[in-house]
Amino acid sequence: MRGISLSQGMLSVSNNLSLPSPARGEALIRVALAGVCSTDLELVGGYYPFEGILGHEFVGVVEACDGAAEWIGKRVVSTINLSPECNGKCGSRCPEHCPDRTVVGIVGRNGVFAEYVALPVANLLAVPDSVPDEQAVFTEPLAAALRISEQIDPRDSRVTIIGAGRLGLLCAQALRARGAQITVVGRSEKSRNLSQELGFPTYSTKKLPDSALPAAPLIVECTASPDGLRLAVELCPPEGTIVLKSTYADQPGDARFAGFASVLAAVVVNEIRIQGSRCGPFDQALAMLAAGEVNTDSMVEARYPLSDGLAAIAHAARPGARKILLHP
Amino acid sequence: MRGISLSQGMLSVSNNLSLPSPARGEALIRVALAGVCSTDLELVGGYYPFEGILGHEFVGVVEACDGAAEWIGKRVVSTINLSPECNGKCGSRCPEHCPDRTVVGIVGRNGVFAEYVALPVANLLAVPDSVPDEQAVFTEPLAAALRISEQIDPRDSRVTIIGAGRLGLLCAQALRARGAQITVVGRSEKSRNLSQELGFPTYSTKKLPDSALPAAPLIVECTASPDGLRLAVELCPPEGTIVLKSTYADQPGDARFAGFASVLAAVVVNEIRIQGSRCGPFDQALAMLAAGEVNTDSMVEARYPLSDGLAAIAHAARPGARKILLHP
Repeated sequence: MRGISLSQGMLSVSNNLSLPSPARGEALIRVALAGVCSTDLELVGGYYPFEGILGHEFVGVVEACDGAAEWIGKRVVSTINLSPECNGKCGSRCPEHCPDRTVVGIVGRNGVFAEYVALPVANLLAVPDSVPDEQAVFTEPLAAALRISEQIDPRDSRVTIIGAGRLGLLCAQALRARGAQITVVGRSEKSRNLSQELGFPTYSTKKLPDSALPAAPLIVECTASPDGLRLAVELCPPEGTIVLKSTYADQPGDARFAGFASVLAAVVVNEIRIQGSRCGPFDQALAMLAAGEVNTDSMVEARYPLSDGLAAIAHAARPGARKILLHP
Repeated sequence: MRGISLSQGMLSVSNNLSLPSPARGEALIRVALAGVCSTDLELVGGYYPFEGILGHEFVGVVEACDGAAEWIGKRVVSTINLSPECNGKCGSRCPEHCPDRTVVGIVGRNGVFAEYVALPVANLLAVPDSVPDEQAVFTEPLAAALRISEQIDPRDSRVTIIGAGRLGLLCAQALRARGAQITVVGRSEKSRNLSQELGFPTYSTKKLPDSALPAAPLIVECTASPDGLRLAVELCPPEGTIVLKSTYADQPGDARFAGFASVLAAVVVNEIRIQGSRCGPFDQALAMLAAGEVNTDSMVEARYPLSDGLAAIAHAARPGARKILLHP
């Protein structure tokens, strides 16, 4: 089958990958649509030494199943953390924080940038008929955005989103739907325009500090850059909270952290809380998509066939690029 | 009068400083004993462009007072954040987080490394007779240690303290008195010995990771170094909390943050909370000292007269140095 894989840091499109064979309790899923996430770009950039088929955002149809035949023919999404051997014995929030976990397309397990993927039935969720593929493919990143509201109650709170990219605007929409008053701060004009179209008061990073920017006790950092965290600390009021959503790779002789002792000192002096935040509730994300509370259509920048995978990933890396989708 | 002051980055002992004249609502206090804190050392190192008399840990006796004559002759300590003009209008936790605040010996106000200091009566607390000067001088740093238990309930929780220095061992004792089970991790053998004398299971930083080190969902970073935070993130379990207690100055071409993208990625992936923590409750600290719940005597390394102030501060900067006290 066709797929996009990473091997020793080299990204390639291959036409002769072997079809995955579902293990015990797994389903064979034909991928209908997949989405490129910044984590994929970071993996290509060396964030984590991943080997195999990339990708973890997708929607597909179950074609075969080990047991659980009722799943065959169903349109599904899948959570991405797996720890089949542990079954909760780790004591952490399993499988999201299981030390033995694999993560689809990120840690020790093939991903979804391929014609087929095999995944445990236990991880699958059926997609409501009212949610088309182009929206269902946003389930994983929207769930990650909703994780914030599991960690910190955003109702009636002012929230500043730093970064008007793919992740930032999903977080903005998810938290607005949860009752927060959102302001978005972005670097790229194109992204800021989309933010404004989505109804968010939007400010240019370059013009900060801006006295018109409302103070917000909750700031969500979505820029995948130390400068985003630096700005978040600058904007955060005393005893405020900064949610870190994005990960990024080390750079040799990393100059991006120059002056970070001052940033950490401000965290101490202003008693700021920095909260890491990762995977979230798929069921809530699907319900939010079904209820039409999130506009994903305007967030799609382009669709590429798998055979143009390298161009697709290069496109996703352009500053201000919205979501890039891949289809078989 | 005699005092130790910082001017344009130069530290000096002066014998002809002018006696402070108490402003409206202020008391003139004769300093009996003062303590050198790592923040003083960081100020000398350029952490913040402070000009004036250093020092914020002290105990003294009120000699004169603008109004409130009942304070005269009383032995006192003083909270260190002042915002006389604001009176809570800032809406933050005032004065600790008031944007207009001054901070004794740190921001815009002379400190206590002198024979006399003038401070608002509103900031004073009387020291119980049962608490001698050598213990009362620990009120400010002990209050800072107790701030942690205002932010996060430590009862019955395992806590790892990183750094067995002055601040680390006060945090360890304060949290033990609040019901936490403490483990201490330290670099200097001398500090680890004191930690063990105080009854804490103690590990060498150099031998980490150590499988015998109990996992703790709460980690307190007291090393004044990015390496301390790096180690804290390494030791922190998923959804654990790291309290940042110490501040430190930027260094030109700061190589200490090499690889920090990975550290922040671990914060995101493991959904760690980093909580800045600063000044705490003086009343609780005095009560804890009066109850004999904290052993401060073993934490005193040396006493110097003010006239030997430079030697005292150099001594405090030695690795593993315990508390250095100054007397007039």
